[in-house]
Amino acid sequence: MRENPAGEVSKNAILLERGGFVYKTMAGVYDYLPLGYLVLENINKIIREEMAGIGGQELFLSAMQGMARWSKTKRWSDLSGIMYRLKIENFSVEDHYESEIGLATTHEDAISEIAAKTVFSYKDLPQFVYQIQTKFRNEPRAKSGLIRGREFLMKDLYSFHANEKDLDEFYHVAGEAYKRIFSRCNLVTYVTEAPGGTFTEHFTHEYQVLSDAGEDWIFFCDSCQCAQNKKISPLKDGANCLNCAQGKIILGRSIEVGNSFKLGTKFSQAFGLYYSDKDGGKKPVVMGSYGIGPGRLMGTIVEIHSDEKGIIWPDSVSPYAAHLISLNADGQKVYAAMLDAGIDTLYDDRDDKTAGEKFADADLIGIPWRVVVSEKTLAKNMIEVKGRAGNKIELMPLEDFITKVKKS
Amino acid sequence: MRENPAGEVSKNAILLERGGFVYKTMAGVYDYLPLGYLVLENINKIIREEMAGIGGQELFLSAMQGMARWSKTKRWSDLSGIMYRLKIENFSVEDHYESEIGLATTHEDAISEIAAKTVFSYKDLPQFVYQIQTKFRNEPRAKSGLIRGREFLMKDLYSFHANEKDLDEFYHVAGEAYKRIFSRCNLVTYVTEAPGGTFTEHFTHEYQVLSDAGEDWIFFCDSCQCAQNKKISPLKDGANCLNCAQGKIILGRSIEVGNSFKLGTKFSQAFGLYYSDKDGGKKPVVMGSYGIGPGRLMGTIVEIHSDEKGIIWPDSVSPYAAHLISLNADGQKVYAAMLDAGIDTLYDDRDDKTAGEKFADADLIGIPWRVVVSEKTLAKNMIEVKGRAGNKIELMPLEDFITKVKKS
Repeated sequence: MRENPAGEVSKNAILLERGGFVYKTMAGVYDYLPLGYLVLENINKIIREEMAGIGGQELFLSAMQGMARWSKTKRWSDLSGIMYRLKIENFSVEDHYESEIGLATTHEDAISEIAAKTVFSYKDLPQFVYQIQTKFRNEPRAKSGLIRGREFLMKDLYSFHANEKDLDEFYHVAGEAYKRIFSRCNLVTYVTEAPGGTFTEHFTHEYQVLSDAGEDWIFFCDSCQCAQNKKISPLKDGANCLNCAQGKIILGRSIEVGNSFKLGTKFSQAFGLYYSDKDGGKKPVVMGSYGIGPGRLMGTIVEIHSDEKGIIWPDSVSPYAAHLISLNADGQKVYAAMLDAGIDTLYDDRDDKTAGEKFADADLIGIPWRVVVSEKTLAKNMIEVKGRAGNKIELMPLEDFITKVKKS
Repeated sequence: MRENPAGEVSKNAILLERGGFVYKTMAGVYDYLPLGYLVLENINKIIREEMAGIGGQELFLSAMQGMARWSKTKRWSDLSGIMYRLKIENFSVEDHYESEIGLATTHEDAISEIAAKTVFSYKDLPQFVYQIQTKFRNEPRAKSGLIRGREFLMKDLYSFHANEKDLDEFYHVAGEAYKRIFSRCNLVTYVTEAPGGTFTEHFTHEYQVLSDAGEDWIFFCDSCQCAQNKKISPLKDGANCLNCAQGKIILGRSIEVGNSFKLGTKFSQAFGLYYSDKDGGKKPVVMGSYGIGPGRLMGTIVEIHSDEKGIIWPDSVSPYAAHLISLNADGQKVYAAMLDAGIDTLYDDRDDKTAGEKFADADLIGIPWRVVVSEKTLAKNMIEVKGRAGNKIELMPLEDFITKVKKS
């Protein structure tokens, strides 16, 4: 799209819609088009690798869940403001298999019910399961593009432990995995102490990325990177950091890209999730829960890695490695050679667009390398190469470019 | 689970629940547990490979969709019996961004609206896009396990063409891809002429697998494999086949594992999906739609490939290649060697189960190869190998087994 979409105020939504990555079905509800799905799957691949690396097993839980399940922790009423419920027209009473159904806002309840039927002994612990699944939440303000959705993907990890000590250890391991995920997405995160919310009376931890597009405020130290959510923090802007005694405390807007909760035994007690310990005693399983929104992560990457012309994808999540543009010349041979060399390439061979339009689209779409083939470059047996993030335009043989990309 | 789950009548649900592949959240709504998710992803991988092979690009569309969209083809009212709608409690009027929202039963409407904003010229055609996404349908009778769900995964492919001839050609290409998908899942399918339903007045095609668990009846030829759905067929059981003049027509129960529809211009006209042809004329895009339920496919595989002891997974979709059992012996070295050799192995090292229990579980879970390590086999430097489908038990060196599996 040449123009900004009507009604969008957030940078990530504007760039992602204009670039053909997503389509807005309604406020807070986006479709991933093929280009956007490639980015999403690159992000999901990073998440899956890191989850597998800490022993996570993937599963896939349903969105539809009956009132009885949600009522065990009183969440049927607690979440009524944001939980969508189903109504069915034209149906006779005997077809109503459950009188009331809600769409999952999170899955602690579901996984606790399942664990209660599969975990019996200390030998069954610990266990770590995760999914990448759609959540539904009736958010009153959904104006931040992919950062706040009414229907959105979430990676949620749940851990089950014999005791608090084991939870504490894994909580740290999961936190390290989270840091690796965000770092691989080229995001700097502040591990931020935050209020417990409905889950726990202890601190929870949020993974915050500094950005004016954020909906949160955090106090963070510019030296040791310790941070607290403003909602719970006694800190003040400009104060000295008491943690490292070196840095200054700064108040900044931020986007929460992940969070983690020590659930303790709240859900296990509600769902009868007990295990037999070595001594034969019956004890409640201790749980943790850890969330990342892959779509929100995609939106955050766009907020951070973009300029006035468009997106600047990090290599790790870019939909393609290179964007090949032919200008009144046949780029097919170069395209084939790039594919042969294993360089994932988007080929713009449109013959009804000007060079300026093609360059503008390449800047908007934001693939790391732009490669141009024209009669001039072909005559010299060269290609023209420009990195999306920089300004330098270089003529080089295709082989040199292939070597360059493989190294980066 | 040792016992059959209460309330289940379908074989696939009973075996999949007992084997720990799925968990039943409510009638027609199943969670995929880690073991089941592995099978599901193997099926999805086959589907994705075949979709990519015919030029399909993957995307991901939302479940939530407003009444306005559904109303363009009158489907808001036509589908009211099976479409779940959302209601929200405790919310003020200004929060209601759309007065009425339905959960997608299918996505023809969504994709047509999107295509209308991205397809303009004959140069933009043809296009093939698909997704693997959750559908929601309020099915009155959901007693067939994974074969009929209220919330279920569907792979839906949509094709966009300049004319009927191009659709016809791709319709054939997609059909061949479908046959390869089912064949790779070890299923024999009958390409069955079926009624048009709400989409078209022409025949559509269903991919039917003969099974007593099916909800359909088809007439099929035992020689040329041509078939018609009983609903539209003038054929009779025992008649001679008029198509090949050699076979007999047989009436059989069957499971529909896939279908394809020539949508024509119904949706493109409703959503203003027109393109400029070479001659400058404005024409409606001609569409096709093609569905496969990966979960239903999983259920069907279980119906077909199982015996009184449990599931017999085809190699292509099995969650693991081998099931290693240690009997009062340390199988860790053999396990490590199998993993080193690239054999995906499930290792049953439980020390509180009898050999009989472990064998019964292996038969239930249905992994193609069972490998047993005991003091006796270790003393001989051998392992005991049994194929799930056969009865032969063989002693062999681990290396021979590795060679055997790699060949199969």
